[in-house]
Amino acid sequence: MNTGKIIAFDADDTLWDNEDFFRKAEKQFCSIASDILPYNKAMEELFAIEMQNMEDYGYGIKAFVLSMIECLIKISDSNLTPDKIQKLLDIGKDMINKPVELLDGVENCLESLSSSYQLVLATKGDALDQERKLKKSGLEKYFPNVFVMSNKAEENYARIFNQLNIKAKDFIMIGNSLKSDILPVLNLGGYAIYKKSKTTWKHEDLDEKITSDRFFEINDYSEIPTIIEKI
Amino acid sequence: MNTGKIIAFDADDTLWDNEDFFRKAEKQFCSIASDILPYNKAMEELFAIEMQNMEDYGYGIKAFVLSMIECLIKISDSNLTPDKIQKLLDIGKDMINKPVELLDGVENCLESLSSSYQLVLATKGDALDQERKLKKSGLEKYFPNVFVMSNKAEENYARIFNQLNIKAKDFIMIGNSLKSDILPVLNLGGYAIYKKSKTTWKHEDLDEKITSDRFFEINDYSEIPTIIEKI
Repeated sequence: MNTGKIIAFDADDTLWDNEDFFRKAEKQFCSIASDILPYNKAMEELFAIEMQNMEDYGYGIKAFVLSMIECLIKISDSNLTPDKIQKLLDIGKDMINKPVELLDGVENCLESLSSSYQLVLATKGDALDQERKLKKSGLEKYFPNVFVMSNKAEENYARIFNQLNIKAKDFIMIGNSLKSDILPVLNLGGYAIYKKSKTTWKHEDLDEKITSDRFFEINDYSEIPTIIEKI
Repeated sequence: MNTGKIIAFDADDTLWDNEDFFRKAEKQFCSIASDILPYNKAMEELFAIEMQNMEDYGYGIKAFVLSMIECLIKISDSNLTPDKIQKLLDIGKDMINKPVELLDGVENCLESLSSSYQLVLATKGDALDQERKLKKSGLEKYFPNVFVMSNKAEENYARIFNQLNIKAKDFIMIGNSLKSDILPVLNLGGYAIYKKSKTTWKHEDLDEKITSDRFFEINDYSEIPTIIEKI
């Protein structure tokens, strides 16, 4: 049974772990900066600079490394030694080359859905990072269509609907960010399935309470096929 | 007359100037490094590090800035002062925020083609950079479909054909890089129109001589409609 519906999956922290690597890297940054600022203060400064740079740099590891470097220069005096900057570059390369670990139940869910529906990957951030992770994940075969957006704004989802030649009501988005995966799709008239992840970046937090009969929340990927059949 | 053909344009140095900004930034880098290495030697070191980082960082301004920082640390002694690293970050932000200047004849060409053909933008690099430039260029209205590839490999063009649901023979690529825009499309069975740009990065150089009856070279954008009508 193929209803013509498109099922879109977010990637980071929906298919595989990601935020944990950023949290670990932030801790490494705070440790490198520990002779200058206490842990919490260094973390605050870094987050502030990441937010200032969002429009220029966007999401992803390269953006994160550039913000760490800018932050360390800002909080250091002129005695900052180059080996500390080198350590920040190394943190970035470690993140880029980390293995991809699938979340529990993901592969079974994709396997089961792919026989009846067209699946697409709809993620944001750095295109090269995302393609590399998709290759490492072994999940490429499930996703003939891959969209990497600079950010998950409504206009970018609308562009995907256009490229896929579908209406919003035929689009079901599955992801772990209420702000990026769920709200824009619901606003456009699509369906959204939310699975909370163990770690969320505070930039992805949403104060708003979501109420929509096109919104579903799950605890486990095995719940997805039943939900989709009812849509 | 719409023949079902898709006409794809590369972006950087096909629609607008880009390489010149990188060449200018490289000169600034060499000037910052001038107390350590002579100009040509600094340029060589930077290119070598960019090539080493290509697999990890890919193309684009953020990748370039990270490579400049790595290079400056490598060639400096431990006395490298943080203000020099800050200057490299500033070079990157200047590049990100530079105005977009269309090349001569581009807008007329797009205007003329768009009434008869479906146009797509097929570029590589940093998705956020490319989207920003497209917005600033005022050319968004011509491109309902935008593809930003991590690199212009044959497999990535093949994926675009799949997403557009077309055969290679219905795809005409227009660009300034023989290596990225022309050769992979010809190899897949598509058509390619080459317009040499005033500046080319040596990474885009191609030794091979191209011979194909699906290959065209132009000096001016006004030649494009006539070529396409014959295809």
